[in-house]
Amino acid sequence: MNKEIDINKIVSKLRSVLPASCGTISLHEPSFKGNEWKYIKECLDTGWVSSVGKYVDEFEYKLAEFTGVKRAVAVANGTAALHICLKLVGVRDNDEVLMPALTFVATANAVAYCNAVPHFVDSEERTLGIDPFKLKKYLAEISEIRAGACFNKKTGCRIKAVIPMHTFGHPVDLDPLIDVCSLYKLELIEDAAESLGSYYKERHTGNFGKLSALSFNGNKIITTGGGGAILTNDEELGKLAKHITTTAKLPHKWNFYHDMVGYNYRMPNINAALGCAQLEQLPFFIEKKRRVTENYKKVFSGIDGIQLFQEPKFARSNYWLNVLLLDEKNAPMRDALLEGTNNAGILARPAWVLMNQLPMFKDCPHMDLHISEKLEKRLINIPSSPELS
Amino acid sequence: MNKEIDINKIVSKLRSVLPASCGTISLHEPSFKGNEWKYIKECLDTGWVSSVGKYVDEFEYKLAEFTGVKRAVAVANGTAALHICLKLVGVRDNDEVLMPALTFVATANAVAYCNAVPHFVDSEERTLGIDPFKLKKYLAEISEIRAGACFNKKTGCRIKAVIPMHTFGHPVDLDPLIDVCSLYKLELIEDAAESLGSYYKERHTGNFGKLSALSFNGNKIITTGGGGAILTNDEELGKLAKHITTTAKLPHKWNFYHDMVGYNYRMPNINAALGCAQLEQLPFFIEKKRRVTENYKKVFSGIDGIQLFQEPKFARSNYWLNVLLLDEKNAPMRDALLEGTNNAGILARPAWVLMNQLPMFKDCPHMDLHISEKLEKRLINIPSSPELS
Repeated sequence: MNKEIDINKIVSKLRSVLPASCGTISLHEPSFKGNEWKYIKECLDTGWVSSVGKYVDEFEYKLAEFTGVKRAVAVANGTAALHICLKLVGVRDNDEVLMPALTFVATANAVAYCNAVPHFVDSEERTLGIDPFKLKKYLAEISEIRAGACFNKKTGCRIKAVIPMHTFGHPVDLDPLIDVCSLYKLELIEDAAESLGSYYKERHTGNFGKLSALSFNGNKIITTGGGGAILTNDEELGKLAKHITTTAKLPHKWNFYHDMVGYNYRMPNINAALGCAQLEQLPFFIEKKRRVTENYKKVFSGIDGIQLFQEPKFARSNYWLNVLLLDEKNAPMRDALLEGTNNAGILARPAWVLMNQLPMFKDCPHMDLHISEKLEKRLINIPSSPELS
Repeated sequence: MNKEIDINKIVSKLRSVLPASCGTISLHEPSFKGNEWKYIKECLDTGWVSSVGKYVDEFEYKLAEFTGVKRAVAVANGTAALHICLKLVGVRDNDEVLMPALTFVATANAVAYCNAVPHFVDSEERTLGIDPFKLKKYLAEISEIRAGACFNKKTGCRIKAVIPMHTFGHPVDLDPLIDVCSLYKLELIEDAAESLGSYYKERHTGNFGKLSALSFNGNKIITTGGGGAILTNDEELGKLAKHITTTAKLPHKWNFYHDMVGYNYRMPNINAALGCAQLEQLPFFIEKKRRVTENYKKVFSGIDGIQLFQEPKFARSNYWLNVLLLDEKNAPMRDALLEGTNNAGILARPAWVLMNQLPMFKDCPHMDLHISEKLEKRLINIPSSPELS
C-alpha cells in the first residue's frame, strides 16, 4: 500500500543522522587523512610528476591486488577506461552495445567514441542495474546468431557487447547475465566506475567482464583527482591495454617508433600518488560508508511512502551513493523532496535522465524501459561520504 | 663544404656548458621552485582536487592572458586538445588533414580519432616545420576547389584543415601559410604543444589558428603532470570547447541533462594548481632556456660538420629542445653521436620517425618529403632544461 510522504519528516530524519553543519552537506566528499601529502610531495621533490613514475606502477599493482584481477591499468578517467575496454573487445563502427538506459552518460559516450550505437535495456528494482532475465527474453525476440555473432534482426547491425553498470555501487546479477553473454556471443564489459569495494558472491566486481572500468573522479569512493582504470584477468589484453593507453611506442633507448594508434590516456604520476594514499584507506572508507547506510536504515525503517535501498542478497556493496526510493504513488513528490532537502542544506539529487531521453541518443534502439522509467522518477541519492559516519 | 665531425669533441663541448653531474643529464626536466607545494596542499586541505575548482578557472584565465588569446580551455593532455580542435573545425570521417611528416605521433593520432586521414607535407630547414611555399605548389597540383571546399583530386576526399606543428618550439612561417589556407579553404589549427612562450612576429603562437593546442606533459616548458589546453580567439568556439571537453551537462541545480556527446577531457584541479604555480615562473623559464641556447651557441660556433639550430628570423622561440644539425655528409654519424653523448651521461635523441614510416600511417597520402627525410637523419636534440643555465 502506498502512503503519502511527509517531506519535513524526511528532512528531519536525514538531519538526525548527519553531522550538524554550518554549511551544506555534499553528496560525496573525498577524505585526505592518509599519506596523500607525503606521496605528492615526493613527486614534486623528485620531479616525477608526469606519465611515468613509480606511483603509477604501484597504484596499478595495488589495485590489481585489492580487486583480485590479474592486471590493472591506470588511465585518465573512467570514460577513457570504458573507451579502451570497448576497443579491445573489438567493438567496431555501427556495432550495437547493450547497456542500461539508467546509467551515467559516460557509458553511452564511450560507445559513441567507437562510432558504435548504444542499445538501451531495462533495469530491475532488485539491483537498479540490467535485468538479465528480461534481456534474455528480448534478445530471443530481436536477435539472431549468424556466423558466431549476434545480429539485431531489425537494424541488421551486429550486437557485440553488453556493459552492465553497477549502479551506485550495487552489483548487478552477474551469473545470469554471463549466461546471456554466452548464449548470444556477447562480450561482457563491467562498468564498475561506482563499485570499487563492492563484491558479487564474494568476488570483487570487475572480475567478471573480459575487461572492466573503474573511476576515481572526485566524487568516487577513492579519488586521484581525475582518473580511472581498466581491469582484466587476461594478461595479454592487460599488456595491450597498457600499450594502447600510452602513445604505443616500442621500447628503445632513443627511437620514437609507435606501432599502432595510441590514445594517450595515461594517468600522471602525481595523480597516481594520490591514488596510492587513498587506496591504503579504502577498507576503512568501505566500513565507514556501510556505517552511514546503517544509520540511514535505522531512521528510515517504518517511514511511510519511502524506502532506503538495500544491497542485493548476493552482494556486498560499497554503498557508494545511498538511495531513497519513493513508493510509486509518491513519485510526483520527488522534486518537492529534492527542494526540501537541498533547501535544508542537505544536497540530494535525482537519478540521471535516462540515456534514451538525451538528444544524441534518442534514436538509438531500446527495449521496453518501464522499470527504468519508474525508478528514475522515484529515486533520490542522499549524502554518503565516509566522514558522515 | 661538409667537414667530418669529431664525436669526442662534441661531447666535450656539451660537457663544457652543462653542469657537472654525477648522474645523467636529461633532455628536459621540470623545475618546481615556486608555489607548487602551496597550491597543491590547498587543494588537499580543501578537498577540491577534481574536475571543478578555482585553479582550473585561474589556470585558464592566466593562460589566455599570457598567450593573448580570448579563451583557453584546460584539458587532460595535448593529444586531447588536438582532438577537440579537429572536431570543432568540423573535421569528419574520411576528411584529409594536412600536417608535417616530421612531428610527434600525437598530431597524426588526433586525426585518426576523428576517422580522418593525415596527409603528410614536407618541412623546411629554416623552421623545421611545414614549408608553406612547397605546400602551395603541391595543392595547386593535387587539389581542386568545389562548392567552397578543397578536394584531393586523386583520393576524392575533402581536405579540411592544416595543422602546422611548431617544432621544438620554433614557429613555422605563419603568414604565407595563412595565405595558403585562405586560398584553399583550409581551417588552420596550430599544434603549439611545444611552443608555449614562442612568438611569431611578436604575437604568441596559438593566436593564428582558429583553434590551437598546448601541452603540459612532464617534458614541456611548464608541466601540470599531464595536461594540455585549447586556445582560441573565437569566444563562441571557446565556450563550445569548454562544454564538449566536459560531459556536456547543461547547468541545473540537480538534473543530469547532457545535450551532446562530451569527451570528458577535463584537467583536474590538482593538476591545474601545479600549472598555476608553473605559469608564474614561465617568463623566467623562457629566459633561462634562451640562456642555455646562448651557451650552446658559444661552444658550437666554428665546430666542423655540425650546427646549432637558430630560431627563424621572424620568431622569438622558447627553444624548448635545442637541436644540433649534422651536415648532410655526416648524417650517417648520427647514431654514433647519440651513442657518444648517451654513454657520456648526456641524454640526446633523434627526431621522431617520420609519420609516413609508421605502420598505421604508411598508406596515408603524402607529398615529396625529401627535406623532412634529410632533417630526420641529421637532427639530434640535446639537454635543454631551464636549470641547465
